Amino acid sequence: MKIVIAPDSFKETLSAYEVGEAAAAGFKKSLPCAETFICPMADGGEGTVAAMVDATNGSFISADVHDPLGRLIQARYGLSGNNDTAFIEMAEASGIHLVQSIERDVRKASSYGTGELILHALNRGTRNFIIGIGGSATNDGGAGMLQSLGAVFRDKNGFQLHPGGAALAELETIDLTSFDTRISESTFRIACDVENPLTGEYGASAVYGPQKGADAEDIKVLDNALKRFATVGEAAAGVPIDNIAGAGAAGGLGAAFLGFFPAFLEKGAEIVADVVNLEHYLKQADLVVTGEGGINSQTIYGKTPIYVAALSKKLNAGIPVIALCGSITDGYENVFEHGIDAVFSTLSEIAGIEELKQLTPRHISHTAENIGRLVNLSKKIPD
Amino acid sequence: MKIVIAPDSFKETLSAYEVGEAAAAGFKKSLPCAETFICPMADGGEGTVAAMVDATNGSFISADVHDPLGRLIQARYGLSGNNDTAFIEMAEASGIHLVQSIERDVRKASSYGTGELILHALNRGTRNFIIGIGGSATNDGGAGMLQSLGAVFRDKNGFQLHPGGAALAELETIDLTSFDTRISESTFRIACDVENPLTGEYGASAVYGPQKGADAEDIKVLDNALKRFATVGEAAAGVPIDNIAGAGAAGGLGAAFLGFFPAFLEKGAEIVADVVNLEHYLKQADLVVTGEGGINSQTIYGKTPIYVAALSKKLNAGIPVIALCGSITDGYENVFEHGIDAVFSTLSEIAGIEELKQLTPRHISHTAENIGRLVNLSKKIPD
Repeated sequence: MKIVIAPDSFKETLSAYEVGEAAAAGFKKSLPCAETFICPMADGGEGTVAAMVDATNGSFISADVHDPLGRLIQARYGLSGNNDTAFIEMAEASGIHLVQSIERDVRKASSYGTGELILHALNRGTRNFIIGIGGSATNDGGAGMLQSLGAVFRDKNGFQLHPGGAALAELETIDLTSFDTRISESTFRIACDVENPLTGEYGASAVYGPQKGADAEDIKVLDNALKRFATVGEAAAGVPIDNIAGAGAAGGLGAAFLGFFPAFLEKGAEIVADVVNLEHYLKQADLVVTGEGGINSQTIYGKTPIYVAALSKKLNAGIPVIALCGSITDGYENVFEHGIDAVFSTLSEIAGIEELKQLTPRHISHTAENIGRLVNLSKKIPD
Repeated sequence: MKIVIAPDSFKETLSAYEVGEAAAAGFKKSLPCAETFICPMADGGEGTVAAMVDATNGSFISADVHDPLGRLIQARYGLSGNNDTAFIEMAEASGIHLVQSIERDVRKASSYGTGELILHALNRGTRNFIIGIGGSATNDGGAGMLQSLGAVFRDKNGFQLHPGGAALAELETIDLTSFDTRISESTFRIACDVENPLTGEYGASAVYGPQKGADAEDIKVLDNALKRFATVGEAAAGVPIDNIAGAGAAGGLGAAFLGFFPAFLEKGAEIVADVVNLEHYLKQADLVVTGEGGINSQTIYGKTPIYVAALSKKLNAGIPVIALCGSITDGYENVFEHGIDAVFSTLSEIAGIEELKQLTPRHISHTAENIGRLVNLSKKIPD
């Protein structure tokens, strides 16, 4: 029997690979003849880089970069085991978690550090990039990223703009003379699951501004500034960058990638599946195990377990798909209509949250072991 | 498919029958053609009366009785659906939980109320008794119980003894002239899982005294008093009551039953299994589900799930037995050597203890439903 274990991470508890390892250890006990294959999955958000690093036997690289408010920090990105591809999470350099609530200034927050991570990898010789763009603190249309890679943003008096989205209101020209030429020699796969345009009612500022601390006035200022960026940017890039699906992702970082990079926006799970060779393994599977920290009524809306289940059923309509999770909450049963056949919570005792985190690998193993035992038993149970 | 669901209660959360109902509801969803049979189980301790009342469609009766310190309280006992049998837990009238820590006085605590419960049932016409004797506050050799049923305990001056075990040191005679004659017309099945004698190193006072608040001096006093009771009691009863297995149970209540009642001491689970017709159902089962609040390394030492599993395997060696529980803790795997084939924790989310209790029926149903789903799936999984 071949068991493919393709879970997402259990948020703040275990990486996808660790979940897979714990489950595999449990299955080995009750199904000693089974072969297990761990495909650590992610959806482009938290844990995406770790999943791809783990799947490729890669490594992590540290780089000094500037955080959204311009402070020097150490950020890390992943490198595939063959050194071929950099795995970058923009939140590592430009994430909302880097800025405390009272410090937040979405008008000034800059994606500069994300460009520095790319630059660091370019300098190491990397020419293939996979970039996750969730969790940004910024609303600058990716201007900061472009600046750290050599683009110069000037106002009508020829002065360089201050950092942040609001300053783009003064944008007159984008000078690409010094823009890093290695960009055009590279490939960029951007993990992006949203379709928002850069500006307007469904744009970056209106939709994602509030969660970065923008009030109504900030949104107005930032949306106008991004409109100015769209106009000047389109002239500089030679392609439209506003009304494109995904342009508004990550405070408009999507627009910068679409306009100035040889970039493709793809669903996060699809990119990760590609990197971890998911389809290859699923084609051979007799049983698929996926999972995520929580399975609930929202899981069907594009979460990793549903992606894995749907792909499994596409490749083999009859394949059983089991999801493991930390918590099952009300209304989760709709996953049964989306390719998941059974769901088991791995929680096995009542304890404080920190203790539970420590116990999670053991709990996952217990659960997997007993699922394996039940698989064996079930053959003895008549219909 | 016939599923027999024979769990113990989930302590302080759900009765055995409620656990069974929740599990049956879950199985019905995923195995709609399955027939489910709920056999609420218990081991003679907490939940024993409730299990038997539920299994026989019985009822609860309230009676005014005296607690271990002589205070009037309302206690309840169960009556089988056919009104034939009373189910009494001595702890209802004479339990340690009725006496706060600071009030405890194991020398004076009396089993009087337990006799009053028997009397109340006798007065209702009941002649069959099943009595659980766990959790007592008393160490009086059952003297209190005998007194409330008409036995008179006198000292050498002819004065009646004060209540409690310590007073038995003064015991000179037990006058059975007024001892209720209906006792001898009745049957008494006493649920008793311990084999301690009445007195000595392994006797009631030495072994169970400390958990009732006895210090070293109390133990000495009480053990000597029970020795006196054994001597006088044997003379009155015409049979030995000290060195008999179980005589020391419940502060020596066992001795009183053995000496003065037509009583049999039996394992608690065996009595309950008998009342709930467990064997009858197990013989037809295709799948057995048992369970308890916690499954751990101690479960194999006589807990209900092991009793159910062992009986299941005795009647049908190949029958799959699954245990459901609230928590699985380290070392639980030894249950796999004792007839349990798989264990699933029903915990499904992280929440406070009170909220978890509220959610337990739903969690049990979820777990059972997904076990049923996996049973269906497993037939598609190759070896």
